[in-house]
Amino acid sequence: MKAIEHGSILSPRGFRAGFSRCGIKTAAGVPDVALLVSDTPAAAAAVFTTNKFAAAPVQWDRSILPTDRLRAVVVNSGNANACTGERGMKDARATAALVASLVGCKPRQVAVASTGIIGHPLPMAKLTRGARDAFAALSAAQAAARGAERAIMTTDTRPKSSAVETKIGGKAVRVGGMCKGSGMISPRMATMLAFVTTDVQAGAARLARIVKRAADQTFNRITVDGDSSTNDTVLVIASGASGAALPASGAGARAFEQALLHVMRDLSRQIVRDGEGATKLIEITVTGARSEADAARAARAIANSPLVKCAVHGGDPNWGRIVCAAGYSGADLAPQKVRLDLGGVTVFRRGLPTGADAAREVAGKDVQVLIHLGVGTSMATVWTCDLSKDYITINAEYHT
Amino acid sequence: MKAIEHGSILSPRGFRAGFSRCGIKTAAGVPDVALLVSDTPAAAAAVFTTNKFAAAPVQWDRSILPTDRLRAVVVNSGNANACTGERGMKDARATAALVASLVGCKPRQVAVASTGIIGHPLPMAKLTRGARDAFAALSAAQAAARGAERAIMTTDTRPKSSAVETKIGGKAVRVGGMCKGSGMISPRMATMLAFVTTDVQAGAARLARIVKRAADQTFNRITVDGDSSTNDTVLVIASGASGAALPASGAGARAFEQALLHVMRDLSRQIVRDGEGATKLIEITVTGARSEADAARAARAIANSPLVKCAVHGGDPNWGRIVCAAGYSGADLAPQKVRLDLGGVTVFRRGLPTGADAAREVAGKDVQVLIHLGVGTSMATVWTCDLSKDYITINAEYHT
Repeated sequence: MKAIEHGSILSPRGFRAGFSRCGIKTAAGVPDVALLVSDTPAAAAAVFTTNKFAAAPVQWDRSILPTDRLRAVVVNSGNANACTGERGMKDARATAALVASLVGCKPRQVAVASTGIIGHPLPMAKLTRGARDAFAALSAAQAAARGAERAIMTTDTRPKSSAVETKIGGKAVRVGGMCKGSGMISPRMATMLAFVTTDVQAGAARLARIVKRAADQTFNRITVDGDSSTNDTVLVIASGASGAALPASGAGARAFEQALLHVMRDLSRQIVRDGEGATKLIEITVTGARSEADAARAARAIANSPLVKCAVHGGDPNWGRIVCAAGYSGADLAPQKVRLDLGGVTVFRRGLPTGADAAREVAGKDVQVLIHLGVGTSMATVWTCDLSKDYITINAEYHT
Repeated sequence: MKAIEHGSILSPRGFRAGFSRCGIKTAAGVPDVALLVSDTPAAAAAVFTTNKFAAAPVQWDRSILPTDRLRAVVVNSGNANACTGERGMKDARATAALVASLVGCKPRQVAVASTGIIGHPLPMAKLTRGARDAFAALSAAQAAARGAERAIMTTDTRPKSSAVETKIGGKAVRVGGMCKGSGMISPRMATMLAFVTTDVQAGAARLARIVKRAADQTFNRITVDGDSSTNDTVLVIASGASGAALPASGAGARAFEQALLHVMRDLSRQIVRDGEGATKLIEITVTGARSEADAARAARAIANSPLVKCAVHGGDPNWGRIVCAAGYSGADLAPQKVRLDLGGVTVFRRGLPTGADAAREVAGKDVQVLIHLGVGTSMATVWTCDLSKDYITINAEYHT
C-alpha cells in the first residue's frame, strides 16, 4: 500500500465530481453543493448516526443502502435538513429525484447528505439550481474533487482528503476520500460527513460488513466534544473500474481492508485535528483491558474528560486527571497494576506517581497517552483534541 | 418542615465542631482541618465515589460504615491522600487513631475525609497538630460550624450549608449539613465532600438505605464536568439527641426523608452553582421517559454536553443542541412526540421547532430545561452549570 500525494475521491477510477455555489451558505463565494457520480452502477454501503433525531437525508439513505446500483451522491452544506418533519423527507426525496433525472437513473440510485443549520426547511429552489450547476460542471480532474471538498465544509478551517493505492491479484486498486466536521455537532453547522470512493469490484453486502468494521476502528473512535449529530454519515462507493475483484479472504482481501482503514483513519484524525478550537491531537491508547469494549470505554472517558483536555491544552502532564477518568469509566482495572505513559515517559505505576517529568511530552501538537489497565490483553485507541477558550467562543458566542 | 436560617451541622443537637489551620493548604490564614464530634455514639451511613482509584480515607470509611457507634469525623483539605499506596492507608488509620485517642473512643468510631492534591503523602506532623488544635477548639456554637465549613473548602469560592427542622411524633427533629466541591474532581483540589448531621434516633442499617435513596436523587444528580473524583463522600450522622425515634413508616418516616432530601438537594445545588467558572445554574427535568433510569440518562447527556453548556453560557436558547443530546443519550424517545420547554416557553414540538423565542428564559442566572420524551411516565431532574472560559482558565493554566 502506498499513499497517493494530493489524492482525492477522484483518485479511484470510474468517478466524476462537480460543485457549485447556490447561496445556501451565506458567506460570499464559497461553494455549497457537491455532486459525486459513478460512471456505472456502483456498490455502496454506509454507517450513520445513532442519534434518534436522524435527519431526513439519513433516513432516505438508510432506505436505499446498501445497494449494488448507486450512481450519485449529492451533498449540500449550510442546511442540515434535520428536525424538518414531513417536509424534510419530501425535500430529500425530491433532491434524489432531481439528480436522478440529470444523471439518468432512478431516485433510489442517488444518496443525499446535508450539513448545516437544523430546524429550517431546505431552500429547494436554490438547491435545484445548485445541483444542476454541479452536474454541468462534472469532471474527473482533481480540481473537481478539490472544489467538492470545500463545498461540504461548514465550521471546518480546511478541506480534508486522503487516498492510497494497493494491489489485489497484481492489479492496482485505489481508495480515496473526503470528509468534513469539526464540532461533532453544532446546530448551526452540524455533522461529520465522509465520502470514500474505491475502484475495487465488490458486492454491497460484503462492502457493508467491511465499512462497519472500519468505521468502528476510525470514525467511531474519535471525539471532539462527546456530542454526535443528527446527520453523521460515512458512505463508501465501489465503482469496480479497477477490474480487480475483492476476494473473499486472503492477501487481497486484507490489502483492501487495510487501504480502506488507512484512508478512514487518516480522514477521521484530520477531523479531530481541525476540532473546534483545537490546538493539539491527543491519541489515547488503552492496553491490558478485559475486552476491547472495556478498552474503548476507558479511552473514551479519558478523551471526553474536560479536565484532561484542559490539562493537555495547558501543557500540563496531569497524570491524576487521566487515571481518575479511567477509574470512573466503568472499565475493569487493577489500581495497583495500572501504568500510565505520556509520550513514552512512565508517570504512574503500581498505584503511585513515579515523579518523572513529562512536561515536554505534552508540550507539542501531538500528545500520546498510553494507559495499561492490568487486567487483560485487549486494547483500543481513541483520538481527541484539547479544549481551549476558542471552543467556548465558537460555541457560546454564536446565537441561533 | 421549615428551613433554619443560617443553620449548619450544629443545628441538630448532640454535636460539636472545631477547626484549625495546620498549613497543609498553602494559602495564608485559611483553616484546613475540621473536626465534628457526636457527644454520644451515633448512627452513621455514607455513600462514596465509584471511582476504582478510591482514596485511602474512602477505603477506611468503607471498612467502618455503616455503624451505630460513630463518634467523630476528621477532615483535612489541601491533600486528598489519594494514589498514595500503602502509606496512604497507614496515614488514614493513624489519623483515625489519633482522633480516637483525643475523643476517647476506638479508631473504628472515627471517619476520615481528605480533599486536595493527589499523589502526595499526607503531611502527618502537620495534620496531627491540626487535629489536636481542632479538638481543643470544639464547640457547639454556630461559629464553630462556620469555621468547619471554610476548613473543608478547596477551589470553592464560598462555604455551603443548609439546615431544616421537621416534626416526628410532635418532637422537633433537625437535619443540617455542609459540603464542598466545585470541579467534580481536580487533582490539585479534588472532590465533593458532604457531611450531614441529624438528631433523629435511627439505626445505621435503616439510615444507610435512606441515605442511598437520597443521594441518588441529589448528589448523584449533579454534574459540573462529568468527572467524578477519587474521594467523593456523603456522610450522614444521627445523634439521636432529639429523643424522636424514626418510625419504620408513615408520616414521621416521610417527614424525616423529606427533610434529609431537602438539605442534600440544597447542598448539591450549591455545589453546582459554585462550579468552576460557573455563572448559571441549569435545572434539566426529563419527563415522559420509559423509566427513571432512562430519564436520568437523557438528563445527564444534556447536562454533560459542552455544546449545551456553552449555549446557555452565551444566553442562546439553542433547542437543537438539547434535543440532539437527548437523541444520542441512549434513552428511548419518540421524535415526533418530544416537547422541549425553556423556562416555560415551548420551543420544540412534534419534531419541529415552534419558532418561539426563549432568549429571555436563558438570559438569567437560573435556567430551566424541561423535555418530554413521549414514551412513558417516568421522570428525573439533573442540575449542572454553564461552561465558561473561566473553566478553561482554572483547569488549563494550573500546572501540577
